[in-house]
Amino acid sequence: MISKAKSKFIKSLQIKKYRKQEQCFVVEGGKSVSELIRSDYQVLTIAGTREFLDSQPAGFAVAAEVIEVGNEELGKLGDFQMNHTALAVARMKPNKPLTAEAGEITLLLDDIRDPGNLGTIIRAADWFGVTKIIASEGTADLYNPKVINATMGSFLRVDVYYTSLPEYLAGISLPVLGAVLDGDDIHGCSFWNGGVLVIGNESHGISAGVAPNITRRVTIPRYGKAESLNAGMATVVILDNLRRVQKKD
Amino acid sequence: MISKAKSKFIKSLQIKKYRKQEQCFVVEGGKSVSELIRSDYQVLTIAGTREFLDSQPAGFAVAAEVIEVGNEELGKLGDFQMNHTALAVARMKPNKPLTAEAGEITLLLDDIRDPGNLGTIIRAADWFGVTKIIASEGTADLYNPKVINATMGSFLRVDVYYTSLPEYLAGISLPVLGAVLDGDDIHGCSFWNGGVLVIGNESHGISAGVAPNITRRVTIPRYGKAESLNAGMATVVILDNLRRVQKKD
Repeated sequence: MISKAKSKFIKSLQIKKYRKQEQCFVVEGGKSVSELIRSDYQVLTIAGTREFLDSQPAGFAVAAEVIEVGNEELGKLGDFQMNHTALAVARMKPNKPLTAEAGEITLLLDDIRDPGNLGTIIRAADWFGVTKIIASEGTADLYNPKVINATMGSFLRVDVYYTSLPEYLAGISLPVLGAVLDGDDIHGCSFWNGGVLVIGNESHGISAGVAPNITRRVTIPRYGKAESLNAGMATVVILDNLRRVQKKD
Repeated sequence: MISKAKSKFIKSLQIKKYRKQEQCFVVEGGKSVSELIRSDYQVLTIAGTREFLDSQPAGFAVAAEVIEVGNEELGKLGDFQMNHTALAVARMKPNKPLTAEAGEITLLLDDIRDPGNLGTIIRAADWFGVTKIIASEGTADLYNPKVINATMGSFLRVDVYYTSLPEYLAGISLPVLGAVLDGDDIHGCSFWNGGVLVIGNESHGISAGVAPNITRRVTIPRYGKAESLNAGMATVVILDNLRRVQKKD
């Protein structure tokens, strides 16, 4: 059973202002919570069904408050209907600078505003072995429950650093690929030894401050009539293409 | 100004039961409504701002009821916040059988339940020149406003036929590719002259009734640790890979 005050606190974390104030965020779903417990995030509270709690190893999350709850109670606490086994409150990590290195792929997100898109991109990054994302300050908040949920646990393996992209790009000398609608056919890209991939905003593309830093503009070839692919789809297709040619080195 | 009865009617179309009963659905957003008017869908009602209506050619949509509305009124009518210029009610098309042909790519969706995923897949299909989708009866409803919105107008160029997939597959002799987690590396696929691509359910993959019909199981190579890609991402990456090798014929 969860107290009214705790319930109110957990719900408040759906709002960015309160997350920032408390430096806490919510993780939903048994699988994600299990992974969270085993990660280097500091877990403050775990609310789980008896079955979920029993499935955890003895002495798990010793530093956290553990509360047994019913399925229905859990459903009311979280943002998502699918959450039927567990929910946790964890401490946000500091916004730590990340360095793009040669030989790696570093993603730069230029105002990806939709939380679902950001979550999908983090999950795709995790699939393609990308562990560093540099996000403009206009990009959706990593700790938004819609983002965390869409990552399906991948937020635990991919780091996101929020900063000014023009300033960040001024400091690096790696190739900078930009996903655009009128660049070189990505199928013609036969070599890629890592660098930076810039994904632009859902409506406005790559911003004026970022565009001059692009060293190669690439496009996914189109065979039909859709005007564009969404930011998440473009990211996943380009990552697949880059990994394909990286293998051939 | 829109009447209360009309407003209630439009809102009721957010629910599948009423869409089925009325055989009508809603399209939101100026761009999609403009394209709808020019399509072969029968448009019954157009609610638009003065600016939107003035931007249409003289004599547009003669058979439709045209209502001038304010931005705020529009926002209340629709499902999406972004809709500030127009909304239309159109008649659903009959569920018309589609035939998979050699040389084409036909998508088979095996219980894609999430409306956002279905919409994204339709948009991706339109980008990659796929115009036929065969969907299991457990797949989300094409006319759900979340699906229509996520297609960004691509529902006008991609046809969806709902049917029993095992029965459908029994009647075709084309290659049937299945997207799975333990198949052949799609990067190793060097030839593809069309056929059917099956995308499985978000949680359960390809169903038991469909699996025996798969002639080739393919997998997107993984470089990181995410357990899977979502159905939309898997679709778009495989379509890109198939189009790449089709070009080489």
